[in-house]
Amino acid sequence: MKSYMDMSREELLTLKAALEEELKTAEAKGLSFNMARGKPGLSQLAIAMPMLDVINSESDMKTILGNDTRNYGDWDGIGECRQLMADMMEVNKPNVIVCGNSSLNIMYDTIIRSMVVGVNGSTPWCKLDKVKFLCPVPGYDRHFRITETFGIEMIPVPLGEDGPDMDMVEEYVNHDEAVKGIWCVPKYSNPTGTTYSDEVVRRFANLKPKAEDFRIFWDNAYCIHHIYEDTQDKILNILEECEKAGNPDMVYIFASTSKISFPGSGVSAIATSLTNMEYIKKFMTAQIIGHDKINQLRHARFFKNIDGLNAHMKKHAELLRPKFEAVLSILESELAGLGIGNWIKPRGGYFISFESMPGCAKAIVAKCKELGLVLTDAGATYPYGKDPKDSNIRIAPTFPTPQEMVEATKIFVLCVKFVSIEKLLNQ
Amino acid sequence: MKSYMDMSREELLTLKAALEEELKTAEAKGLSFNMARGKPGLSQLAIAMPMLDVINSESDMKTILGNDTRNYGDWDGIGECRQLMADMMEVNKPNVIVCGNSSLNIMYDTIIRSMVVGVNGSTPWCKLDKVKFLCPVPGYDRHFRITETFGIEMIPVPLGEDGPDMDMVEEYVNHDEAVKGIWCVPKYSNPTGTTYSDEVVRRFANLKPKAEDFRIFWDNAYCIHHIYEDTQDKILNILEECEKAGNPDMVYIFASTSKISFPGSGVSAIATSLTNMEYIKKFMTAQIIGHDKINQLRHARFFKNIDGLNAHMKKHAELLRPKFEAVLSILESELAGLGIGNWIKPRGGYFISFESMPGCAKAIVAKCKELGLVLTDAGATYPYGKDPKDSNIRIAPTFPTPQEMVEATKIFVLCVKFVSIEKLLNQ
Repeated sequence: MKSYMDMSREELLTLKAALEEELKTAEAKGLSFNMARGKPGLSQLAIAMPMLDVINSESDMKTILGNDTRNYGDWDGIGECRQLMADMMEVNKPNVIVCGNSSLNIMYDTIIRSMVVGVNGSTPWCKLDKVKFLCPVPGYDRHFRITETFGIEMIPVPLGEDGPDMDMVEEYVNHDEAVKGIWCVPKYSNPTGTTYSDEVVRRFANLKPKAEDFRIFWDNAYCIHHIYEDTQDKILNILEECEKAGNPDMVYIFASTSKISFPGSGVSAIATSLTNMEYIKKFMTAQIIGHDKINQLRHARFFKNIDGLNAHMKKHAELLRPKFEAVLSILESELAGLGIGNWIKPRGGYFISFESMPGCAKAIVAKCKELGLVLTDAGATYPYGKDPKDSNIRIAPTFPTPQEMVEATKIFVLCVKFVSIEKLLNQ
Repeated sequence: MKSYMDMSREELLTLKAALEEELKTAEAKGLSFNMARGKPGLSQLAIAMPMLDVINSESDMKTILGNDTRNYGDWDGIGECRQLMADMMEVNKPNVIVCGNSSLNIMYDTIIRSMVVGVNGSTPWCKLDKVKFLCPVPGYDRHFRITETFGIEMIPVPLGEDGPDMDMVEEYVNHDEAVKGIWCVPKYSNPTGTTYSDEVVRRFANLKPKAEDFRIFWDNAYCIHHIYEDTQDKILNILEECEKAGNPDMVYIFASTSKISFPGSGVSAIATSLTNMEYIKKFMTAQIIGHDKINQLRHARFFKNIDGLNAHMKKHAELLRPKFEAVLSILESELAGLGIGNWIKPRGGYFISFESMPGCAKAIVAKCKELGLVLTDAGATYPYGKDPKDSNIRIAPTFPTPQEMVEATKIFVLCVKFVSIEKLLNQ
């Protein structure tokens, strides 16, 4: 296809007129699609339903160790669920605390705790003039929301094909004492699908932080969320690498089953060094007597072990693949070679990241909304919602059906074309 | 019975020798009872088991409003569960946020949030030189643990028969700007079983706090936890009274179903003014996408409504009454008139509060432990674990069976007698 860049003004105007007709037709259909959030689709929820039969009024409610899950106890989670989450997170069971239904909540708790009481005895962050976090971009809006909420200054760090710009990360972390943390989604990153290379993980582990209370917030949200069977990414174990590098306490790993069992009714976990866990325990045992152990038992018995988890995720992959492929094939057939957008084909995770021409993302998202297609707000993938190039758009293809994804993506490419032409004509 | 106070030294020594024999016999039995925490008994858990059948793989998972409880959404709780908790807490549904499995966790979150970002825009507590909380005593150790954890100075306020010493509360709250809160268990108080009188509730509502960010932490943990059918306490609605008094934002009410359905697998809620809720929302929506809505649905469908809840609590009362009466009748028959202890007969809640002779509580708890009976640590019902008179002992009769409670209470009274005689002999 001829690139829009090579078109004359007349050609662009002719094309624009044709697109306007298409837009009218699309608008007349009165469609309504929501691709704003990474929500599992109904078919994914359906395969988790048998989990709700695993625990019933006839069930033995005791853990393997004989503790009654119906009563108080086991603040750090029941043994079998700690083992399950440890295997999923590729760490050892003693390093894991299984918590409630939300890993985001554990991250929030970890940050607000550091604000008030510091990290393992360091000066509370609220007593400092300035606290900064590094934010690989594009990234996860809800991470940025937490740090913004507490007035933590966010510094964007470009995310490349194999992870964040580590020169920049090292420069900040090793020389600026105000830098206390970095948000990472190391595998099938939200929204780009990026998986950190071994070299990147090792460079993380070998940071020499200026601040003793610097921590890596390693949100391994998509650790077993592959889309394909033959091309599955693997990452190095950050906890082990940190130990080897003499930085055993530098990382907190987070994960949950929100996109494995049920969003909102899954289990979440944090994995970290025993020293960090001792400090967390001091506060978590003041915060709560224990998390929902019946739900932990439900998860442990339904999935049984890591093989059960992986088998379940294989079913997810089969359900998600057609949705991702619907989007990718339409992007390819409709936009390849036009010079008005790039996208990354992910091997896992929940999103497709689209880069429009600079200055077009907000307009594309707005145009889509007019046609009944709700996307994540443009800019959401950047700290403070400010994408300096106004070009990143996060597509969440998981909730609609494959057929709906076809319809929705057609609207999307239509809007991309139209907005890009308007931009070119106004230049 | 002859009071120990009226006995001669010889009489006491004779009695002591007899008690030593009894202690030896008891010790030889090798008993093991735990009355340390307010844990529901197995019979109470058993009647909640049918709840686990309410939601299964065949269930319609939608709320009355048609929202899918299996997916993200409804950060403030599903409608029918908000209504259920509102009715239980005697407030209106719009004033309720249903959260996760633990009201203690909501209290912790409320305090740590106030530390970092203040209350509705006030100066964050962590920026102040001094923050103080009033603590009616004896009270709930886990409340005190939260405030202690964050370095908040705790000021004990005596709890009388109809509530805290309100002269003292008014004196502090109305004149000391550092006083930011008070811990209250207004109904069937932990551990004394006290229910605040209407006058006390009105005096609370009519406080004129020196600090604009002063809040009453109204932990209505035992709001429907009666022991008898004919003598049930009622309290005035603090939220309404605060509104009437022109202090609409002064109170946070907390409650949960931990001692109704399952400890650790229930649902919890906070009720407060709409202004307070707006502020909470700002942070809670950064903290979590939503709480466990499937469990909220399970609760709403199992209990149906407030009548269902009350009917269920009537069953609890029937199971608990024999346990409380076993303790009370032995205390009465063995200790009445001896002058070595007082106790309060509660009409609801989870505890019996015992006052020994001054300076004896720690020794009694230690002696009980030697004989296999674990009680809550003496002092736990006071801030910093320091009971100035060393006399309060919290008895938690809910977990053992009635027969076990008889055995355990016999050991308890034996230890009370023995320690009291030792005390008298050493005076």
